[in-house]
Amino acid sequence: MLTVLISLGLMTSTSARCVRPPSPEHPNILILMIDDLGYGDIASYGHPTQEYTEVDRMAAEGTRFTQAYSADSMCSPSRAGFMTGRLPIRLGVVGGRRVFLPYDIGGLPKEETTMAEMLKQAGYVTGMVGKWHLGINEKNSSDGAHLPSRRGFDFVGVNLPFTNVWQCDTNREFYNDEPDTSMCFLYDGDEIVQQPMQFEHMTENLMHDWKRFLKARIREDQHERPFFFYFSFPQVHSTQFASKKFRGTSVRGIYGDSINEMSWAVGQVLDSLIDNGIAQNTLVILMSDHGPHVELCLNGGSTAGLKGGKSNSYEGGFRIPFIAWQPGTVRAGRVSHEVLSSMDLYKTFRDIQKCPFDGKPQLPLDGTNILQELQGDSKEDAGYLGERRPIIYYCNSHLMAIRLGNYKIHYKTSPIFLNSTVDPQLDILCPNGKPKKDWYVSQWCPEESLKKHSPPLVFDLIRDPYELYPLQNNDETNRVRLKATDILIEHKHSLVPVPNQLGKFDKKLTPCCNPPDCRCDKLNRPRQSMKPKFHYNLIPPMESTSELELMERLL
Amino acid sequence: MLTVLISLGLMTSTSARCVRPPSPEHPNILILMIDDLGYGDIASYGHPTQEYTEVDRMAAEGTRFTQAYSADSMCSPSRAGFMTGRLPIRLGVVGGRRVFLPYDIGGLPKEETTMAEMLKQAGYVTGMVGKWHLGINEKNSSDGAHLPSRRGFDFVGVNLPFTNVWQCDTNREFYNDEPDTSMCFLYDGDEIVQQPMQFEHMTENLMHDWKRFLKARIREDQHERPFFFYFSFPQVHSTQFASKKFRGTSVRGIYGDSINEMSWAVGQVLDSLIDNGIAQNTLVILMSDHGPHVELCLNGGSTAGLKGGKSNSYEGGFRIPFIAWQPGTVRAGRVSHEVLSSMDLYKTFRDIQKCPFDGKPQLPLDGTNILQELQGDSKEDAGYLGERRPIIYYCNSHLMAIRLGNYKIHYKTSPIFLNSTVDPQLDILCPNGKPKKDWYVSQWCPEESLKKHSPPLVFDLIRDPYELYPLQNNDETNRVRLKATDILIEHKHSLVPVPNQLGKFDKKLTPCCNPPDCRCDKLNRPRQSMKPKFHYNLIPPMESTSELELMERLL
Repeated sequence: MLTVLISLGLMTSTSARCVRPPSPEHPNILILMIDDLGYGDIASYGHPTQEYTEVDRMAAEGTRFTQAYSADSMCSPSRAGFMTGRLPIRLGVVGGRRVFLPYDIGGLPKEETTMAEMLKQAGYVTGMVGKWHLGINEKNSSDGAHLPSRRGFDFVGVNLPFTNVWQCDTNREFYNDEPDTSMCFLYDGDEIVQQPMQFEHMTENLMHDWKRFLKARIREDQHERPFFFYFSFPQVHSTQFASKKFRGTSVRGIYGDSINEMSWAVGQVLDSLIDNGIAQNTLVILMSDHGPHVELCLNGGSTAGLKGGKSNSYEGGFRIPFIAWQPGTVRAGRVSHEVLSSMDLYKTFRDIQKCPFDGKPQLPLDGTNILQELQGDSKEDAGYLGERRPIIYYCNSHLMAIRLGNYKIHYKTSPIFLNSTVDPQLDILCPNGKPKKDWYVSQWCPEESLKKHSPPLVFDLIRDPYELYPLQNNDETNRVRLKATDILIEHKHSLVPVPNQLGKFDKKLTPCCNPPDCRCDKLNRPRQSMKPKFHYNLIPPMESTSELELMERLL
Repeated sequence: MLTVLISLGLMTSTSARCVRPPSPEHPNILILMIDDLGYGDIASYGHPTQEYTEVDRMAAEGTRFTQAYSADSMCSPSRAGFMTGRLPIRLGVVGGRRVFLPYDIGGLPKEETTMAEMLKQAGYVTGMVGKWHLGINEKNSSDGAHLPSRRGFDFVGVNLPFTNVWQCDTNREFYNDEPDTSMCFLYDGDEIVQQPMQFEHMTENLMHDWKRFLKARIREDQHERPFFFYFSFPQVHSTQFASKKFRGTSVRGIYGDSINEMSWAVGQVLDSLIDNGIAQNTLVILMSDHGPHVELCLNGGSTAGLKGGKSNSYEGGFRIPFIAWQPGTVRAGRVSHEVLSSMDLYKTFRDIQKCPFDGKPQLPLDGTNILQELQGDSKEDAGYLGERRPIIYYCNSHLMAIRLGNYKIHYKTSPIFLNSTVDPQLDILCPNGKPKKDWYVSQWCPEESLKKHSPPLVFDLIRDPYELYPLQNNDETNRVRLKATDILIEHKHSLVPVPNQLGKFDKKLTPCCNPPDCRCDKLNRPRQSMKPKFHYNLIPPMESTSELELMERLL
C-alpha cells in the first residue's frame, strides 16, 4: 500500500514562537494552477459559448484580473518562475525543447528556494497534487532527485512529474497506438502508481488527496499554523480528457468538457474550505501557466483575440486568466486591470511572513508585492504595478520584449506558425482547418526563425491589447524605448551565468515501475464521488452570489 | 421656439377597451440602440481594459446574450430590419453605398409597418431620440417624408436623421476642415436645430428629452397605457466624441470615453425607471446595430476576436452585444447563449399585444418570438432558437451565408480589407498600423470582390466562434448543407420584388436650415446635468447587484 506523509508531527526548521495560526491577514494559501488554459477560455473572460461554471462563480465571489502574466509561455520555465519568483533565465530553466522531458537530467536547481520551501520555513504545512514538470530524476530512473517531495512539499499526493501528452490518450481518439508508457506515468508521492496513466478517475483522485490533506490539517494543526497547497491540474493540456460524467457536458466538445471537469473540482475545493469554516482564512488563486495551445485548433483553447498563443511572446502566450478569492478580504465581484506577474506571488507571500528565513539565502526576486491589489485595497493610480515592475518576455533564452507601464516593446518576434514538422495527427486536430504548413516552431525558438525589429515595435496594450497597430516613432515612443533600454541593460547585468537545465538527456532516467515492462496500476484507493452540480443548460445560477450572500453561507 | 408633441391627448387608432396599463407581462418597451458598438467592446463581453460601467451593471442586473445578431452589418439595413422585423432585402433597403445618404430619395417604404406604428396601434405611446438613418426627404429639402414622426413616433426629440460622420468633427482631431454642413445636422422633431451639429452637449440633450417624455407619461397616461421608446445613441460611431466631463475617463482614449459617456446615459435611464417606480413594468433592451468599424483601428472598436467587422458577413459583422433588463421578470445575472436576432423583437412585441391590428396588413416577418428566452423561462433545449429561426446573412443584395442551429454555411465571403480607396485620414486613424492597402471594400459589396465557395464553407460556431476551421465534408456537413439549401430556396421564393431604396440621389434634398448658408444653432434649452457616477479607477462596484438587492431598491 501507499505510504504518504499526512501527519506531519513537529515542524523543525522554524522558530516555534513566530509561527502564527491562519487568519485573514496571514492566510492559508491555495494555488489552483490550470494547464494551458487560454485567456479567453471561460465565460467570465468572454468566451461566447463555454458553460458558466464554478470558475466563473469564483470570479463573481472574488477578483478577476485582466492583465496578469505568466513567467514564460511554456510549461516548465513558467512553473519554475512561479515557484521561485524569479525569471526562468536566472534559473537556467531554458534550452532544449523548453520543457523537461521524462529523461532530462536537469530540474529546478537546488540553489533556488521554492515557494513551498520558503513557506515551510515560515511555519506552513505544505502539500501538492497534480502536474509538476520541474524535473524527475538525476542519476537513475528512480532517484526522484527533482520531485516535489525534495522541493519543500511535506505532502505529495497523486501527481504527474512530467505532464499529459497526446501519446497518453487511452481512448485512441487522438493517438492511434497504445499509450506510450515512457511518457505516461502517474506518481503518488515519489512512487509510480500507474503506468500508463488513466484519465477516467484522475480528477477524483486529485480531489480525494486534497480532501485528505485538508482533513488532516483541520484535525491536527490548523489551529496553530497555516497551510500552503499547490493544486496543479492536468487539465486542459493535451491529451484533453474528461471522465464519463463530464463527457458531452460542453457544447465545445472535449475541450469544454475538460474545462467543466476542472471547474467541478474548483467548486469542490472552494466548498470544502467553506464547509470547514476556513474560507475567510484562505487565499485562493486560480491561474493558468501560460497561453493556450492554439495550434491544436478546436482542441487548443482561445486567447479571446489576443495575438499568438503558447510558446509565443505576443500577448496570447503570456496573458493568463487569474482570479483571487478570499471571502471578506479579497473584494467580491471586482475586475482589476492592474498588471500582475505570476512571479509576484512568491514575493507577496514572503512579505507577509514574520518568521526569519534562516535557510538558503534568498536570491534576487523578479516579482513585486501585489497584496494590496489582490485584496482591492490599493490607493495607487491605475497602472502602478505596470510601472513598478516591468514584464520581461523571453522565448527560451532570447529576450523578446518588455512591457513597461502600458507600453510593450518587441525587439524580436517569433513566427506564430511555420512549416517545420509533419504531424500525422494534425488532420484530426484541425480538420480542414489550419494547414500543416502552419505548424508552429515557436516552442524551440531557434535564432534563425526570429524576426528582429529595428527600431523595435511599440504597442499601447491598453488601447491595443491585440497588438495590431504599432505606434509611430515620436518623442513619446522614443522616451519609452530609452527607458526600456536602461531597464534591460540593468536586467542583463543582473543575470548570473547558470547551467542550462533543459535539454541534457539520459534515456536511462525514464521512469519505469517494473522494468522492462513499465506497466502497473496500484491506484486502488477509495475515490471521491463526482457529482456535477452546476448547470449545463448554458444558464448560470439565477443570481450571482453577492459578498453578502457568501458571508451568510460562511457564518 | 420648438414645438414638440409631448401631451398626446386621445389615442385614436386603437380600440380603447383592449388597451391595458403597463404591467410585468405587458411592459413598457425601451430600446437602447448603440451605434457600431463591437461585440467585444465592453467589460462584461470580455474587453480587457474598457472600464466597468453602467452597461455592465445592466448586464449584472439582467440577462446578457452572447449569440445575438443584427439584421445586417451596416446601419440603414440593420435598423430597417430591426424596425420592421423583416430582412432588409424584403424592404428594398439595399443598393448604393448600403446606407442612406443625406440626399437619398428613398427611405423605409410606407407599405412596411414600423415597430412604433405597430405598438401605437396596440395603444402604446411612442417616442424616440437619437439616430434614425432610415431616410429624410423625398421631394425637397424639408418635406421630411421619411422622418420618424411619419413612422409611428408620437414624440420625437433631438435626433440625427442621418448619422454622425468624421466630417462632423468640430475639434479638427479627425477632420482637418470645417465640419461639412451637408452631412452634419441635428433635428428636434422635424426641424433642423443645429447645423453643423455640436457634440459637446449631445448626450445631455438626448437624456433631457427622454426625461421629458418620461415625465409626461408618468403624469398623463402611465396608469392606462404603456410606452415604447427608442433611445438611439450616436455613440460610438465615428466621429467619436465625448463631452468634457468624459474626456480622459477611459484608458482606451476617445473610443472608450465615448463608451463611458453612453454608459452614463444608460445608467441615467435605468435609474429614472427605478426612481419613477416603473422599472418592473419596463422591458429594456440594449443592443448594437451591428459589428464594430474595425478598419478604423483604435477608433473602431473590438470584436473580441470574432472575424471581420462592420459591413462583413463573418461573425464580427453581425454578432452584437445584447442585454435584456426588467427587474423581477428578466432573470438577473444570467448569461444566455441562445441565438437571437434583432428582428425577433418586432415579432415578440407584437405577440404580447391583445388589441386587434387594423391598420396596414402585417407583411411576413423574419423573426420569431423570443419572450421566454428573454425572461429566462424557456424549457427548451439549448440552441432551439438557432434551429427554429435560421440567421440569414446578406451583404447588400448578395445572400452570403446562413446560420442553421450551430452551423454557419458561407456561400460567398467578402474580403475584410482591400485596397480600393485612398483616405488621407488613415494615417491619423491607424498610425503606423493597418496600411492603406487594407482599407475595406465590404461596405459596397461589389460582385467582383466576392469570393464564391463551392462547396460552401461550413463552421461550427459553438466550437469555433472565430470561424477559423471549416469542417470537413462528410455526411453531417452534407446534411446541413442540404437542409440549408431547402431553407434558402424557400426564402428566395418568399421574396417579393421591391424597388431599391438606397442609392437614388437628389442633391437638392440635402437638409439646410437657412439656405444657402445652412448654418444655425437654435438649441438653447435647459440641459440635463451630467454627473459621472461610476468608477473610473478601473474597479467596478464592490458587489455586483443581486436580484435581491435590486428588488430592495425598487420596493
